Amino acid sequence: MKPLILISNDDSVVAKGLKVLVDAVREFGDVVVMSTDLNASGKSHALTTNQPLRVRSVHSEPGLDIYACNGTPADCVKLAEAFFCSRKPSLVLSGINHGSNASINVIYSGTMGATIEASINGFPAVGFSLLNHSADADFAACVPIVKTIVADVLKNGLPEMTSLNVNIPNLPYSEIKGMRVCRQAKASWADSYEKRTDPNGRDYWWLTGEFICNDNAEDTDIWALDNGYVSIVPTRPDFTSHSAIEHLQQRYK
Amino acid sequence: MKPLILISNDDSVVAKGLKVLVDAVREFGDVVVMSTDLNASGKSHALTTNQPLRVRSVHSEPGLDIYACNGTPADCVKLAEAFFCSRKPSLVLSGINHGSNASINVIYSGTMGATIEASINGFPAVGFSLLNHSADADFAACVPIVKTIVADVLKNGLPEMTSLNVNIPNLPYSEIKGMRVCRQAKASWADSYEKRTDPNGRDYWWLTGEFICNDNAEDTDIWALDNGYVSIVPTRPDFTSHSAIEHLQQRYK
Repeated sequence: MKPLILISNDDSVVAKGLKVLVDAVREFGDVVVMSTDLNASGKSHALTTNQPLRVRSVHSEPGLDIYACNGTPADCVKLAEAFFCSRKPSLVLSGINHGSNASINVIYSGTMGATIEASINGFPAVGFSLLNHSADADFAACVPIVKTIVADVLKNGLPEMTSLNVNIPNLPYSEIKGMRVCRQAKASWADSYEKRTDPNGRDYWWLTGEFICNDNAEDTDIWALDNGYVSIVPTRPDFTSHSAIEHLQQRYK
Repeated sequence: MKPLILISNDDSVVAKGLKVLVDAVREFGDVVVMSTDLNASGKSHALTTNQPLRVRSVHSEPGLDIYACNGTPADCVKLAEAFFCSRKPSLVLSGINHGSNASINVIYSGTMGATIEASINGFPAVGFSLLNHSADADFAACVPIVKTIVADVLKNGLPEMTSLNVNIPNLPYSEIKGMRVCRQAKASWADSYEKRTDPNGRDYWWLTGEFICNDNAEDTDIWALDNGYVSIVPTRPDFTSHSAIEHLQQRYK
């Protein structure tokens, strides 16, 4: 039987990046898409606990079923695995995200929330992102990269509870130098809320911000992307700072 | 000048655990609370990007200002640091959460989303949780534990970009054996959605689930809690699986 590939994203079911991803991987198996009904960027690993999930069928043809859900990207993966996959997925994909999920962005990303959720549940999973926020971004260079990685993961699997965070520079394919497996660079967003006042005299704030990264070592995803490489960060759902344990054991007994 | 302590949580501004935390730490400094207007459990590290943030003042007296915000716990911390703290916080706290944030729960937790966000922004931060989901849980045993940890962190700080995920067993203080600095146990939630049909004949799903943990080694938070200890996991915002890098470098070039 053909592999079943489950796909989610966080830019909603009408996003161009999702369509490119689906088209790129249909040759590898049957595809089930469970996407977010609305844009869910920045939803991280959030789950919906205080309202019920709804699902609508968007498209169905042999080998391809597309659904949209009112939940978060992580909800989409959990619910699809449980109720909308006719057999166990061989692979879970997320994206292609419009915009970078490298470095600290992995923490906030709905695309990576879906990916990491799949890995927690025991599925090999890969999240793809292109460094271009535009709704009409050119994803042509992503297609051969997606096919290479999907073929490899279907054949060789991934280490336990490990997923891949793949970011693709915004370059023509001919200018991409290759792929680099690397670590997440240390970075943060400098807070820069914009304060406004509404017509009723009440204040409100919009999140803006500037990406600050002083960690430019050659083993980081930011270095790879800045130098024309695809970055691949093996990602696992463990926040433990193992290096801090011994020091803190002296303080807390 | 007294230290400024910023506090957030994910159980909303009226939660008992928040009140207990505020009362426990006022002796250490001036307190600013920025809590979620509504329950935001399971919001993880989500940020609000598609609507503006609103803030209302709930209470103000010398040394204590309490605000409620329509955003996520991570939003609360970011916005409060930028606009509602009269000086740089010496410490950011979150909780006391009603329910465990040990093991894989740290990934989904709004309480820990706030805590980790503070650490990304360079502040020493601690998230506290009690293993009791009840709205009227007895937090008495938490108070001396909170005071001990807060006093220590104010005096000695924490390693760079590291926060503490503190979980407290649901026991009388006299039965708690001590504190253990440990790693996050590997675990997952077995998906168990409940499917229902509404009066209009449309399906909907509620998230339920069962906690599955087969990682009971003595160096885990789950072992500590099961054996009557407070668990303290040093936590940092890095999802990289460093151990997988070398293997994957052979596959992706």
